[in-house]
Amino acid sequence: MGRRVVALGLADPTFQLVGAIDHADSDQAGQDSGSVAGEAPSGVEISAQWPALDDASSPKAVVDFSLPEAIDGCIEQCVKTQSPLVVATTGLSEEQQQRLAEAAKAIPIVWAPSMSLAVNLSMKIAEQITAALKDVSGGLDVEILERHHRFKADAPSGTALKFGELIAGQLGESTQHVHGREGHTGARTREEIGYHAIRVGDNPGEHTIVFGMLGEKIELNVAASNRDCYASGALAAAKWLIQQQKGPGLYSMFDVLGMA
Amino acid sequence: MGRRVVALGLADPTFQLVGAIDHADSDQAGQDSGSVAGEAPSGVEISAQWPALDDASSPKAVVDFSLPEAIDGCIEQCVKTQSPLVVATTGLSEEQQQRLAEAAKAIPIVWAPSMSLAVNLSMKIAEQITAALKDVSGGLDVEILERHHRFKADAPSGTALKFGELIAGQLGESTQHVHGREGHTGARTREEIGYHAIRVGDNPGEHTIVFGMLGEKIELNVAASNRDCYASGALAAAKWLIQQQKGPGLYSMFDVLGMA
Amino acid sequence: MGRRVVALGLADPTFQLVGAIDHADSDQAGQDSGSVAGEAPSGVEISAQWPALDDASSPKAVVDFSLPEAIDGCIEQCVKTQSPLVVATTGLSEEQQQRLAEAAKAIPIVWAPSMSLAVNLSMKIAEQITAALKDVSGGLDVEILERHHRFKADAPSGTALKFGELIAGQLGESTQHVHGREGHTGARTREEIGYHAIRVGDNPGEHTIVFGMLGEKIELNVAASNRDCYASGALAAAKWLIQQQKGPGLYSMFDVLGMA
Amino acid sequence: MGRRVVALGLADPTFQLVGAIDHADSDQAGQDSGSVAGEAPSGVEISAQWPALDDASSPKAVVDFSLPEAIDGCIEQCVKTQSPLVVATTGLSEEQQQRLAEAAKAIPIVWAPSMSLAVNLSMKIAEQITAALKDVSGGLDVEILERHHRFKADAPSGTALKFGELIAGQLGESTQHVHGREGHTGARTREEIGYHAIRVGDNPGEHTIVFGMLGEKIELNVAASNRDCYASGALAAAKWLIQQQKGPGLYSMFDVLGMA
Repeated sequence: MGRRVVALGLADPTFQLVGAIDHADSDQAGQDSGSVAGEAPSGVEISAQWPALDDASSPKAVVDFSLPEAIDGCIEQCVKTQSPLVVATTGLSEEQQQRLAEAAKAIPIVWAPSMSLAVNLSMKIAEQITAALKDVSGGLDVEILERHHRFKADAPSGTALKFGELIAGQLGESTQHVHGREGHTGARTREEIGYHAIRVGDNPGEHTIVFGMLGEKIELNVAASNRDCYASGALAAAKWLIQQQKGPGLYSMFDVLGMA
Repeated sequence: MGRRVVALGLADPTFQLVGAIDHADSDQAGQDSGSVAGEAPSGVEISAQWPALDDASSPKAVVDFSLPEAIDGCIEQCVKTQSPLVVATTGLSEEQQQRLAEAAKAIPIVWAPSMSLAVNLSMKIAEQITAALKDVSGGLDVEILERHHRFKADAPSGTALKFGELIAGQLGESTQHVHGREGHTGARTREEIGYHAIRVGDNPGEHTIVFGMLGEKIELNVAASNRDCYASGALAAAKWLIQQQKGPGLYSMFDVLGMA
Repeated sequence: MGRRVVALGLADPTFQLVGAIDHADSDQAGQDSGSVAGEAPSGVEISAQWPALDDASSPKAVVDFSLPEAIDGCIEQCVKTQSPLVVATTGLSEEQQQRLAEAAKAIPIVWAPSMSLAVNLSMKIAEQITAALKDVSGGLDVEILERHHRFKADAPSGTALKFGELIAGQLGESTQHVHGREGHTGARTREEIGYHAIRVGDNPGEHTIVFGMLGEKIELNVAASNRDCYASGALAAAKWLIQQQKGPGLYSMFDVLGMA
Repeated sequence: MGRRVVALGLADPTFQLVGAIDHADSDQAGQDSGSVAGEAPSGVEISAQWPALDDASSPKAVVDFSLPEAIDGCIEQCVKTQSPLVVATTGLSEEQQQRLAEAAKAIPIVWAPSMSLAVNLSMKIAEQITAALKDVSGGLDVEILERHHRFKADAPSGTALKFGELIAGQLGESTQHVHGREGHTGARTREEIGYHAIRVGDNPGEHTIVFGMLGEKIELNVAASNRDCYASGALAAAKWLIQQQKGPGLYSMFDVLGMA
């Protein structure tokens, strides 16, 4: 993922790349970070050495897209240099999340279960659509479809459940979460949210929320084509930290989108 | 439905309308059938009286789109006048189906659970796609999605189950039919067909078959927008009877499509 | 449309039906409005006579879903009885729109080019998505697809153009509106909005806005299944007028949605 | 692509890998082909040396997924060892295509503009659907939508044009190919095929054929998620050559699908 963060970052004139950090034993240490990312040379070598970030003359941000074992050192460096931090690494332990919250008292940190801009934005949009339509004459029916590759071992996806939770927050407490339908179900009630977990091929992940009414419907579909979406989301968070000059705090992608 | 059969039939130069039969107490008896159908006058009055169909000079067909209680009289007339018959009426009792089979020894009859050309064609197409792709390196995953209005009381639809039956006939005996997914399901097996019954608004009926592979997928979607599809299907069956000059027999829409 | 307004209104406990007005020569004058709408009797006869609307004891609203020639009398009555008005009639002349604006100085009026809740809501949502994603690293591509029945004589639809206008308002002045693509087009520029007018069968109207990025996309689809959506929208406007107790003014469906 | 052919081939019990050929200067020469493909070791080293293919004891096939400059040597080897050949390499010159045709007099060769099974199958299916529905009462409307990444410089795609050519072959000579619609177009004629070239993000390629009628429609959608589809197609062709024991000849993917 580091390569794609570098590649997309170099292509965005908002950013100036000042460091590209990998662990000391990396095969790519000493190589040009742009070249390794498949782009024109950036003039910044891959190194285990952090660049001087404590220069206060221009706003900066650190994007961490690594592994849980590397995150602690990164947090430490960012606190020491007062550098805003985007944590795009997944799989943090509870202790690490704790340390993140602690560090957020000293520096601004963006952290979210998914860095995808489109997924986070769609969640807020789905909430809005539900709020706007839930009292329509004739009633509103909400169904959540998700598609993932055949290897996914749980259903529905955590993202689908999160969509459902936000929608249920608008529909009210009597919402019932229904997973699949078979047999003599009777007519659909207004309280149901239906979930459908489709498993096919190598689909990298797709969610569709259907808002059905009498005479019309809205469908909101959000789909990944590859992992670039996580690099773009991390860069959007970095841009937000740089442009908003936020104070210390733990922020989500909803904050980045201005929709918290 | 009679109105739409008349309207679509009048617009098709293949046909000449020679009779428009309703029961004796009909409010519309004596009115012009074209006008009642919202079209230009056809010159054919709505009547309980059958036109002279035993004229052998030109091919003909009768389309029955009525109610189960009217079907017996219709079959009788068709046998008497040696008229090919399309039965588009649904809800026939077993005795009536029996009488239909009996009559089909004397005249050609087209009868099918659904008169929709698109649905019947899609079933055959789904069978072919499965046959062509089932042994692909990397494997084939088939999922069946259906959408209907919120009032539908059973799931999945009979049509979805029929799609599944035809596809399973190609995949082999070990096929498992899975309705919805929830919890720790483990990776999808190659033997599964997944069914997903979506209930929203006033959707008149839609089926999507997803054929997922590594690197690509095919989706076959067939959707009704209104009941005109049944009138078109009935007319296609009538055209087939007229043009093919079939002998006595009970035919399906697969025969009409040349795909039996 | 009057029938569907009555049917959906009777089914919504927010409303009490107090009058069902048709012109004096109507075939249905004197019949029960609920029965004519295919529902249980409502106790309110269809009549050319307006009910007493000047009773101030409970909030009320008038829904006009008629023809341009009837609208003037309706406006007059509403001003006289100080009744909030929803104008769902389309095809008003410029003079009539002028009179509407004039009357809106005396009473609250909701009027919009389309009464569809889903279409109006989707427009606001499309604006928001554009605003949130337009500066994403890697860039945002917006394409507008619309589908209508084969008889539609202009392309793209007015609704598609309105979507494009709102999106362009977010993208900036250099936006280019591109209709179809053919030949050696070169790579897509970030300034383009692509329009695609699909004409098939009897599709009652559908719009899809695609927001494409590197690695992911959002699609917003809004589709009519029949004209019930206009009746629901008109009732939503009436409910808003009743519940918000708005003062005189000319309001749009964006106001009704709380998104003006 | 070679890696994916090896990976998918190793996972398919139909195949036994006997050679993995790369040019003499390859960085990976001497390494295990399975390991390089990210799978368990295969026991077959990557080498510029062809394995002994002239052993007649078991059926074999060669898959060439390389570059135009490598194809000539490959053809020569296959003719010498009487090995059936799948050419999945794109960008062949006319002279090379000539040599391919020449070689096909001595050995069986599968070659096609696209190795995608799903695309080739969908073309045949689209032809069938058109043939079955073109005379439906009320008429058939065909529209072709294609989506590709923003960098694609021509429109519509060659694949979309090929779909259109096959469909036009069924519709008849008066077919008109329409690219986009704008302005006062008038009602759609039955002779039109509409093309819509959508350019968004990094979409790897997707085609949708819409078959619209009164009251219903069929949509056939075929989409790539990544380049695995070309590896799978090449392996399907190899399997067909092995299992069918074809004599010399130049075959297409339509032959492989049993739909030539």
